[in-house]
Amino acid sequence: MNVMIMGMDGYLGWALGMYLRGRGHDVCGVDNMSRRRNVHEVGSWSATPIKTMKERLEAYKKATDRDLRFYKGDLTEESFVDLVVKKEKPDCIVHLGEIPSAPYSMIDASHCNYTQMNNIVGHNNILFAMKDHVPKAHLLKLGTMGEYGTPDIDIPEGFFEIEYRGRKDKLPFPRQPGSWYHLTKVHDTWNLMFANKIWGIAATDVMQGVVHGVKTEDMVNDDLLTRFDFDECFGTAINRFCAQAVVGHDLTPYGKGGQTRGYLALRDSMQCFTIAIENPPDEREYRVFNQFEETYSANELAEKVSKVAQELGLEGKIWNIPNPRLEAEEHYYEPDMKHLPNLGFKPTYTLEDELRITIPKLMEYKDRIEAKRGCIMPKVKWTA
Amino acid sequence: MNVMIMGMDGYLGWALGMYLRGRGHDVCGVDNMSRRRNVHEVGSWSATPIKTMKERLEAYKKATDRDLRFYKGDLTEESFVDLVVKKEKPDCIVHLGEIPSAPYSMIDASHCNYTQMNNIVGHNNILFAMKDHVPKAHLLKLGTMGEYGTPDIDIPEGFFEIEYRGRKDKLPFPRQPGSWYHLTKVHDTWNLMFANKIWGIAATDVMQGVVHGVKTEDMVNDDLLTRFDFDECFGTAINRFCAQAVVGHDLTPYGKGGQTRGYLALRDSMQCFTIAIENPPDEREYRVFNQFEETYSANELAEKVSKVAQELGLEGKIWNIPNPRLEAEEHYYEPDMKHLPNLGFKPTYTLEDELRITIPKLMEYKDRIEAKRGCIMPKVKWTA
Repeated sequence: MNVMIMGMDGYLGWALGMYLRGRGHDVCGVDNMSRRRNVHEVGSWSATPIKTMKERLEAYKKATDRDLRFYKGDLTEESFVDLVVKKEKPDCIVHLGEIPSAPYSMIDASHCNYTQMNNIVGHNNILFAMKDHVPKAHLLKLGTMGEYGTPDIDIPEGFFEIEYRGRKDKLPFPRQPGSWYHLTKVHDTWNLMFANKIWGIAATDVMQGVVHGVKTEDMVNDDLLTRFDFDECFGTAINRFCAQAVVGHDLTPYGKGGQTRGYLALRDSMQCFTIAIENPPDEREYRVFNQFEETYSANELAEKVSKVAQELGLEGKIWNIPNPRLEAEEHYYEPDMKHLPNLGFKPTYTLEDELRITIPKLMEYKDRIEAKRGCIMPKVKWTA
Repeated sequence: MNVMIMGMDGYLGWALGMYLRGRGHDVCGVDNMSRRRNVHEVGSWSATPIKTMKERLEAYKKATDRDLRFYKGDLTEESFVDLVVKKEKPDCIVHLGEIPSAPYSMIDASHCNYTQMNNIVGHNNILFAMKDHVPKAHLLKLGTMGEYGTPDIDIPEGFFEIEYRGRKDKLPFPRQPGSWYHLTKVHDTWNLMFANKIWGIAATDVMQGVVHGVKTEDMVNDDLLTRFDFDECFGTAINRFCAQAVVGHDLTPYGKGGQTRGYLALRDSMQCFTIAIENPPDEREYRVFNQFEETYSANELAEKVSKVAQELGLEGKIWNIPNPRLEAEEHYYEPDMKHLPNLGFKPTYTLEDELRITIPKLMEYKDRIEAKRGCIMPKVKWTA
């Protein structure tokens, strides 16, 4: 299959490019390298010393004798997206090319607008290019479980059938996102549902949980590592906890720590994407996959990291700090996750398994985390 | 009260500025004059020969000895919005400053992105400026009944309480908008709900029906007329039917004509906005008002226009043409409308009353409609 990965320079994109290529797919990627700039802007860097795209492609060729093709360009440029889709005519576009940070989007009006415009316009341009050049291709779009928020009822996969005042309808499940960034993902979801309705673009809309882990089997040497962010903005809670453990900082869940989310390991994320790609939706179908394997509260997460850190001789003390975000710190959380297992998804790595790989790998790069340890604690606040 | 009207050069904005000023409010307005440019771009103009803003302000001063203040500027410019809100410190911002056309947004990727960016960024900039300078002010934001789409259940005002798998929650009612433009209104709604949650911005989110009518009592001479669009993009169905009747063109409902929507007269729209402004929400409250007075199908609408046109000696023949849009042409439609009547709203003009004012007024400007009659019939299509 000819697969185009938007955002191939990112954490998931680089891992997925190699994974799909290894399975025999023809893979090309697109990126504007903005993640590197944005992480630099907030004063940080990847804990893993990632190579430039040119070096990555050469290292991959050298290690595997396989090629990955790459286009540097910005998805918000309509003509560029039109051209690259027209030239490549992909069977599947995997859209990972968005700014993924809640705190970054919350810095100020400029960062809010930059995140919203980047994500919405980039996604729109992909939809129009697909309509014009590959109307039967499959769009695998990355959303987030965070689109749903934390309602006091079960979370279905995208739609639910309800009765209201004696009548029934099947409707999109209401979204309650918790940051300007999360809002972009909701906006994308509504935009995609509309494109599917009017143009029949077949799509898998992935509501993904938090992905953890530092490497996949394809990263046979360190030149092939993907990025691992640990700063306040681009590092997830689990990444920050791991980085904190490595440099002897307390692990700092926000607030009461009851915030519960879905999680999955990087290599299982690759497995899920691949299942969706290799089992595409029907013609004109729009389907929503909730993509995670386990749910944990922030406190449980910190305890897992602490436990594995202690096995490795690190201190791993936990310190609940004031929550910079406005979010429910104790809540009901029961999301469905049936579509992917129905297609054969089986989690291979538990959180602890993965932590036993991640933390030792990060310990090799302790100096890089130490150099940016000032970037871990939160400064961006949700309230005025 | 110090009221700032975003989009004061528009159809509603100009009428509202005079209406509120007449009630003794201190009124200033903002506009980038883009509506004039966008209507010019699609080859049309207002049926009513509207004056420049400078002329309008002078004519209003001359007719009433009252001042309206005006700032020319673009809401997508963060620094401008910040400055004007900081300078004026309004008690209430009425946000009418968005691109309001479904077909215009459907022309191509550029028009989709222009509409989405203009509307979303402009609205975001208002939210941030309010947070920074007037955190207790009231935002009256114009949404549309079109955000809800046409679900097969009743449409509440913004939220509904439901039971799902044995648990209950009160959730935002799912939106199913029908164009890139309508999607911007949904995106704004989610963005506003979030701003209300984190910053406590008090807001009335108006889900307005289709407004009809050519004038209000404040338009004491033709220099004070508001615009009246009748082209495919910026003219609503009712405006197009009226214009068609005036120039002897068949009235052309799209498809089967069963598309049912809420409608209200221009002067009743002014009444509704004023009720919301003069009865602001509680501190930190977010409330949704469905704002319309009657529901009609496109066919019923055409029949009403035809009837009044015939009273006036016009032909008013009806011709159902193929639907350029993708929409349900026969559907259930039961939206609630309780909040505004609870605050005292009483419809003053029925659709027929208003048509008996509108059509004769348009007949005075028959030549202007005739000159652009080629702009009435649809060219922009929803499907690929």
